[in-house]
Amino acid sequence: MDEVVSELRVRYVETDQMGIVHHSVYFHWMEVGRTDYLRKKGFPYSKMEESGIRMPLIEASAKYVSPAKYDDEILVITKLEEFSPIKFSFSYKIVRKSNSKLIAEGITKHIAADCQNKPKRVPKEILSIIGG
Amino acid sequence: MDEVVSELRVRYVETDQMGIVHHSVYFHWMEVGRTDYLRKKGFPYSKMEESGIRMPLIEASAKYVSPAKYDDEILVITKLEEFSPIKFSFSYKIVRKSNSKLIAEGITKHIAADCQNKPKRVPKEILSIIGG
Amino acid sequence: MDEVVSELRVRYVETDQMGIVHHSVYFHWMEVGRTDYLRKKGFPYSKMEESGIRMPLIEASAKYVSPAKYDDEILVITKLEEFSPIKFSFSYKIVRKSNSKLIAEGITKHIAADCQNKPKRVPKEILSIIGG
Amino acid sequence: MDEVVSELRVRYVETDQMGIVHHSVYFHWMEVGRTDYLRKKGFPYSKMEESGIRMPLIEASAKYVSPAKYDDEILVITKLEEFSPIKFSFSYKIVRKSNSKLIAEGITKHIAADCQNKPKRVPKEILSIIGG
Repeated sequence: MDEVVSELRVRYVETDQMGIVHHSVYFHWMEVGRTDYLRKKGFPYSKMEESGIRMPLIEASAKYVSPAKYDDEILVITKLEEFSPIKFSFSYKIVRKSNSKLIAEGITKHIAADCQNKPKRVPKEILSIIGG
Repeated sequence: MDEVVSELRVRYVETDQMGIVHHSVYFHWMEVGRTDYLRKKGFPYSKMEESGIRMPLIEASAKYVSPAKYDDEILVITKLEEFSPIKFSFSYKIVRKSNSKLIAEGITKHIAADCQNKPKRVPKEILSIIGG
Repeated sequence: MDEVVSELRVRYVETDQMGIVHHSVYFHWMEVGRTDYLRKKGFPYSKMEESGIRMPLIEASAKYVSPAKYDDEILVITKLEEFSPIKFSFSYKIVRKSNSKLIAEGITKHIAADCQNKPKRVPKEILSIIGG
Repeated sequence: MDEVVSELRVRYVETDQMGIVHHSVYFHWMEVGRTDYLRKKGFPYSKMEESGIRMPLIEASAKYVSPAKYDDEILVITKLEEFSPIKFSFSYKIVRKSNSKLIAEGITKHIAADCQNKPKRVPKEILSIIGG
């Protein structure tokens, strides 16, 4: 299964007084990667929500290798690791654009749910688009 | 019209690499103040949303007097300045708890709207609770 | 004085349960605009901080015209309104990329300060780059 | 090793358009828990930074069990799991205050570092305060 690459630049608000990007922000970037993955596959997450399916997280983790700093150019490389009608997982590599050096990596696990966050099966048509 | 005082402590994530609280965070604190105001008046904002009324902002402003820092104890003093069935405005003073010194002040202006963010009149019963 | 245009896409984390972008997020976007303005002028803010000058805010305001939503493509149009060795102000127009419709507009006012947030004059050389 | 309990209330800005708290926010709450842990142990993190020691994260993870919602009252139960002069780890349980039901749990792993984020040993005196 292939990868999708997203590009972003570190915002000032994303830093903390340690002078580096706050660890929680990497989860925002993974979300950007996930959003781009689905859009590039031809089934934007906004369309998925309109069709009554949401993808709430059941698990998220990150390993921080080297701190990102203000105004750095960053690449998020997103890969769909597993998917079924009821569960998804994505992996992410976050690298510095200038030298491809690894900054952090992460995993998110999701279930498919309806608007009340109750489990709901994803139709086959959608699955084949996303994983294809 | 009286004031409601909220108490909070600066979170690490709220700082930026300048070593002070990021200016956008003060709007989060004003929201905490607004939420507390409505709850203490006996009509929590969650109940207002359930009754089909939302209060999207049409204007927000802040003046920054002295920077708040990590772990500072802060008071937000919230006052309902104006209200009608279609419009509200709140003012806020943000002060250091230890010495009552002014850190920032702000104003937010809101309209009453339905779930599609279309204008909607607030029923008299609710108005009399909030402004009372 | 000319304008600088920044492009961004609304992140999921930037929405709130009203289904629209949280009002505080517009201040993040103005910051992105400011950062791009300075970089495109040839004097990145990171370089300014390295030279010992910071630009803490003394005032910020926004008017919200039409809500931005998840995955919307947005343009931030940033303009330096006033500058002197001790004070700056920027104005911003935030528009939907697809139709140039105004979403919000804002103003931020800054002082020049040193690392301890004490006022400090900006050298003429830097001023001429930024305002030029 | 004992636990420290922190209390907080969900802010509106912490929700997303799914109508629940955004998954990245739980890492802010764990940080609140960590800050409270250190303060209650008698060695606030602000004091630690002043003494030249920082605790950047090398790893963070969360499992999401049941979504938190706007205005919910939440308890964060923080426990120091491991510590040495060079490494720390904390675990967290996030529960609903009203019924003690588990909302999420998480782990953060940290190294001790100096202001340049280079590894640095924590003096014994500090360790005995924190772990004691």
